[in-house]
Amino acid sequence: MNLRQAVSLGAGDVHAGEDVDVTVVAVPPRSTAGVVAERIEMDPRSTVTDTASIKAEVERGVRAALSGDTAKLSRYVGGHPLAGRERGGPHRARADMFAGRAWVITPMEETSAQALQDARWIAAECGAVPLAMPAAEHDRALAVTSHLPQMVASALAAQLARQPDTVLQLTGQAMRDMTRIAAGDPQLWADIATGNATELAPAMRELSASLLRVAGELDSREGGAAVRDLVAAGRDGLRRIPGKHGGETRSFGIVPVLVEDRPGEMARLLGDTAAAGVNLEDLRVEHAPGLPVGLIELAVAEDAVRRLRTALTERGWTLTDEPSV
Amino acid sequence: MNLRQAVSLGAGDVHAGEDVDVTVVAVPPRSTAGVVAERIEMDPRSTVTDTASIKAEVERGVRAALSGDTAKLSRYVGGHPLAGRERGGPHRARADMFAGRAWVITPMEETSAQALQDARWIAAECGAVPLAMPAAEHDRALAVTSHLPQMVASALAAQLARQPDTVLQLTGQAMRDMTRIAAGDPQLWADIATGNATELAPAMRELSASLLRVAGELDSREGGAAVRDLVAAGRDGLRRIPGKHGGETRSFGIVPVLVEDRPGEMARLLGDTAAAGVNLEDLRVEHAPGLPVGLIELAVAEDAVRRLRTALTERGWTLTDEPSV
Repeated sequence: MNLRQAVSLGAGDVHAGEDVDVTVVAVPPRSTAGVVAERIEMDPRSTVTDTASIKAEVERGVRAALSGDTAKLSRYVGGHPLAGRERGGPHRARADMFAGRAWVITPMEETSAQALQDARWIAAECGAVPLAMPAAEHDRALAVTSHLPQMVASALAAQLARQPDTVLQLTGQAMRDMTRIAAGDPQLWADIATGNATELAPAMRELSASLLRVAGELDSREGGAAVRDLVAAGRDGLRRIPGKHGGETRSFGIVPVLVEDRPGEMARLLGDTAAAGVNLEDLRVEHAPGLPVGLIELAVAEDAVRRLRTALTERGWTLTDEPSV
Repeated sequence: MNLRQAVSLGAGDVHAGEDVDVTVVAVPPRSTAGVVAERIEMDPRSTVTDTASIKAEVERGVRAALSGDTAKLSRYVGGHPLAGRERGGPHRARADMFAGRAWVITPMEETSAQALQDARWIAAECGAVPLAMPAAEHDRALAVTSHLPQMVASALAAQLARQPDTVLQLTGQAMRDMTRIAAGDPQLWADIATGNATELAPAMRELSASLLRVAGELDSREGGAAVRDLVAAGRDGLRRIPGKHGGETRSFGIVPVLVEDRPGEMARLLGDTAAAGVNLEDLRVEHAPGLPVGLIELAVAEDAVRRLRTALTERGWTLTDEPSV
């Protein structure tokens, strides 16, 4: 059904047995190796790549399915475009979903230069940034940056399921941010987690250990130093996350503005921002639940903060100070 | 210095020994009980409340400092406006920071009706929604909805500090969301965590236990069911988080729109949204790092989705389907 829907949305056509240069296998992780091997066997010429979010296990599966045949394996190269969404299906696809995203390519020892080049070409054609690395390195990185956060978000959200209503009433923006990705698909994540178990399980243990260490200190009522160290280490880690355009650390300024909750207010605010010649780097809406007012945080280049504040104040907006991140 | 800065920003004036009706003590958690008791002793008439984000420990401290004197204790009532930010200081305060937020009030057995009324009045005057409950209930709720997420965000961000650069390159929106609050102040969180240790430590253990349970299953390569259950339970919990205006579950629709990264585009989009007579419930910016294009998700009332899609399409915007949350 997904296939028919994708085709009807203009995603291409269904071919079988025709002569193709590059085949991109985009099926659930646990079916990937089988379909990759099948395509390699069916088409004696095509480079075959895939999009599964785990790579070492797929490699192992492809190797096994092709009985280690070096010539056949030379036409396989793993791929993983980092462009997923927390909800799947063709109707949620977007033409630009790969634009500017990293597309990891994981060549094996056997992978030919041609196959590697083909995979890079597919990624670049989609507007993504090809990034080659060994499958093991990819899996280790994704365990920390994607699979672990997913498990943690789900575990946090699962705790909410057991709470009385008063607890839910006290749930703020922080908890919302921390559980957004918990909307993910259970079966897909089961496949990803089991497929990357050797990297994910240790990462989950490491995180649990650091939480249990602090919990143990808290029991003794002497946990101050442990919490201080944890939060300080977190701040150090946070500073390492690259900024909007990748690679560089965030160095924009925040201009917080009060906006009334009625049609047109935000448009007027952004219109005034544009009129000041300032480009938005990011925008965050912070709600004041229950009241018709919201707080909009405009993130702009640091050297544009003063100009924007002046312009918005002149036009009657209410804003307060906020230093650079 | 903070005091001087706050006064210079118009936050009021510094009084000492004068006749006041209500005193709001807003000092770090570990100094709160002492200052509350001092104010009660200094002014024989004033109701005294506070803003510390932990309540049972402050109660205990106040009781001890006032040697259980019932008359004096009748003038104390704990308070906690849920309006903190991940960074502190008077220059980050906002006139509307309490608008529409829950302001928990925690009367004790000894608290007089007058003191309770005074605390409710202060909260309402600030535009907040007073919410009375026992200190223990507040602490149990906040352990889950605020203190635990903070510890988890810090622990996740701390893991990033130890990673090679390639791992950081693969850090996406999910990890950013999951670590935003990790920017919090180490000493403040040390005070909060130790002050609510009896509730927080078990919550940290429970979360760790659920992660370790899944990690254990993953070791046996049979973890599929455990992960599926965890993610499914997370989805159940997620559905219980109240929506923008508190209390009701989210039931808006998402309209995703591609926006070029240049001044005025977002303003034009929101202008067109307003022109369609549609009120934004929420807005999310999803970046395409490295490329001059962004994806804006407009959240609007479900019955406005079709109208907005039609209006935006007519005006030439590129959008794709997205079902209701």
